[in-house]
Amino acid sequence: MEHHDIRMRGFATRHDVDEALTILAPRITPLPSEVIPLDEGLDRVLAEDIVAGLDVPHFDRSAVDGYGVRARDTFGASDYNPIPLTLKGEILPGRALDLTLGANEAVRIMTGAPLPAGADAVVMAEYAEEDKEHVNILQPISPFKNVGRVGEDIRRGDVVLARGRRLRPQDLGVLASIQVAHIAVYRRPTVALIITGNELVQVGQPLTGCQIVDSNSLTLAGLSRRLGAVPVYKGIIGDDYHVIKDTIQKTTEDVVIITGGTSVGAEDFAPLIIQELGELVVHGVAMRPSSPVGFGFIQRQPIFLIPGNPVSALVAFDAFVGPTLQRLQGLQPAYPYAKVRGILTRKIASAIGRVDFVRVRRTAAGVEPLRVTGASILSSTTRADGFVIVDKNSEGLDEGQEVEVYVYS
Amino acid sequence: MEHHDIRMRGFATRHDVDEALTILAPRITPLPSEVIPLDEGLDRVLAEDIVAGLDVPHFDRSAVDGYGVRARDTFGASDYNPIPLTLKGEILPGRALDLTLGANEAVRIMTGAPLPAGADAVVMAEYAEEDKEHVNILQPISPFKNVGRVGEDIRRGDVVLARGRRLRPQDLGVLASIQVAHIAVYRRPTVALIITGNELVQVGQPLTGCQIVDSNSLTLAGLSRRLGAVPVYKGIIGDDYHVIKDTIQKTTEDVVIITGGTSVGAEDFAPLIIQELGELVVHGVAMRPSSPVGFGFIQRQPIFLIPGNPVSALVAFDAFVGPTLQRLQGLQPAYPYAKVRGILTRKIASAIGRVDFVRVRRTAAGVEPLRVTGASILSSTTRADGFVIVDKNSEGLDEGQEVEVYVYS
Repeated sequence: MEHHDIRMRGFATRHDVDEALTILAPRITPLPSEVIPLDEGLDRVLAEDIVAGLDVPHFDRSAVDGYGVRARDTFGASDYNPIPLTLKGEILPGRALDLTLGANEAVRIMTGAPLPAGADAVVMAEYAEEDKEHVNILQPISPFKNVGRVGEDIRRGDVVLARGRRLRPQDLGVLASIQVAHIAVYRRPTVALIITGNELVQVGQPLTGCQIVDSNSLTLAGLSRRLGAVPVYKGIIGDDYHVIKDTIQKTTEDVVIITGGTSVGAEDFAPLIIQELGELVVHGVAMRPSSPVGFGFIQRQPIFLIPGNPVSALVAFDAFVGPTLQRLQGLQPAYPYAKVRGILTRKIASAIGRVDFVRVRRTAAGVEPLRVTGASILSSTTRADGFVIVDKNSEGLDEGQEVEVYVYS
Repeated sequence: MEHHDIRMRGFATRHDVDEALTILAPRITPLPSEVIPLDEGLDRVLAEDIVAGLDVPHFDRSAVDGYGVRARDTFGASDYNPIPLTLKGEILPGRALDLTLGANEAVRIMTGAPLPAGADAVVMAEYAEEDKEHVNILQPISPFKNVGRVGEDIRRGDVVLARGRRLRPQDLGVLASIQVAHIAVYRRPTVALIITGNELVQVGQPLTGCQIVDSNSLTLAGLSRRLGAVPVYKGIIGDDYHVIKDTIQKTTEDVVIITGGTSVGAEDFAPLIIQELGELVVHGVAMRPSSPVGFGFIQRQPIFLIPGNPVSALVAFDAFVGPTLQRLQGLQPAYPYAKVRGILTRKIASAIGRVDFVRVRRTAAGVEPLRVTGASILSSTTRADGFVIVDKNSEGLDEGQEVEVYVYS
């Protein structure tokens, strides 16, 4: 390496977190959709409204085990005045009986079986007694009692699930029930992971004196997968302007993440390369950790400058890459963590104008900020149960204050 | 089919939900472990404690961009009394300098680079000025300032992550940082899905008058996948004793789910078959929906009787199969849903002795129980935002009462 100017070149402008997100959001639009079989649809995001093409059920069905009757034939029935109806047969689920029920007739019928023509109610088995060719009805019943009517679950023409729905297990069941065997969903975003740093080696490779193992590719791949994206590992690249530029130019993925060398220090080529190849939109954000984070676009491809510091990498991903991967799939951005409330056991100092992401533990005593010496302590993210966000308008949070914790899981 | 006795044979004993879970829990033990590459470890469960085999960092490193010095050489420095140190070179991350710092010497050093022998602190670039062969130090610094010391992140011998940990993205990063390239995790459980019912057709197949589309296989497969299990679809089986028995006997999966035909009605063969082949442990649980749920064991293989009713199937899975799949992977059972609190907008009636699972919507007004006419209404599970559990000791919940909602996601 040649002699470097060790002084910071300085960030041209440092954005607020909110500003940066506001700049980012309108430039990210959903990816094209693709059609997939329903049984691959879990956690995918619908790219179309699904309109029911049939009623569910599409026939009147019995909701109980009992006797299909004409309700009016049972009026006046009681234990003292059983009304005998002539048994005309038995109907099981999936097996229609070619029969129209006449006056004072009944059929034996099982839960889920189609009501025969003429019948309009089902007497539960416990309110009837069979006697050879007859069944004695012991209670009157009103029309449509114990009948699941056509369309009671889903009506033909209903929008059953709307575009933008991330499909839950039961959603797949509902789609099956209306014969939707294929669905249009937003394509999963691919994410190029470019890891830079002369000091890095891949996990499992021999480690010499001053090298460290790359951990960011593992963390960032996991975070991407959690959000439904497909990480594509591009390897560890040395701090070499030409190699980094070449690697970036060859990416075809929907999103690029480049970590390390993203600040404004001596070997931080990535911001310069983005400026040359496209547009560096944000570089430097008023947040802690991860203030050197940035992003730009090469044509329409978003590229994120993620600090090599492992805690910063996690925070930067959650703050900026995550919402992007969600928008690309047609989702509203949201942290993929459950939120719980709790009482701070110790104050958190911050500064007005800066958003702090503070790792915390949840203990019997409350929400305890971790005592850590820096953003380089990756193990703090595994000891932490989650994090608290200190707003830019706050100088900090007081001991005893109620806070919202985003819980890692 | 032959003539059936339509009367319920009746459940021998009906268990409490808690009783049933207490019977189930000790019979489910974690599956054997398997060794996988770290980058396939996301969301898998560690089957071993991971002990760090090296310190992180494994050398003293600079935490800032600046000048590596012997702290004592800087004592007395100020803007008015700059102390000149002789510059001996530059250290970049990953590139050790074969050099021992002597008295009144300094090196230029970048964040993450190894401190040279002799140096014990790093002066930040803004508190120093270079002047040809020297650097003038403008502030005194104390020993170990701006130095990340050996083991400050992770100490060799520490248990970094414990057995039973479901691996988060950052956990993978931490494991990489200590050179753990392969991990022992509990095997994913396989789940045989046996769907019974003469009335059922597979999604996308032609539907005749009295048939319905099987939705449960989609829902149950999705629920299984969400918990890290591998569903194995065994097809739709008619209500035929011999075929059902044969299908059950041929399963080699870790868990069997059989849906439909699980009550005590006419065609409900599955409970009888389990009694013949193994042990029917629980059949009938005091809950709503899904009271006909049950389970047994054929040798050590758990087999679940899941009602064919789609809402019941969802509830029965969440209550009994889910905890089983979690235990098989070495996890403590927990509903896989975020919990939030809210105020009921309308009362919920229940009965003492029975646990009710009530689907609710979350609206601006609060937590609104869905008005549904039965457990056969699958679409209620997609309209619902989650569910509320009414305890067996409760007659119901009052309007205005605060409740806990398990949120579908």
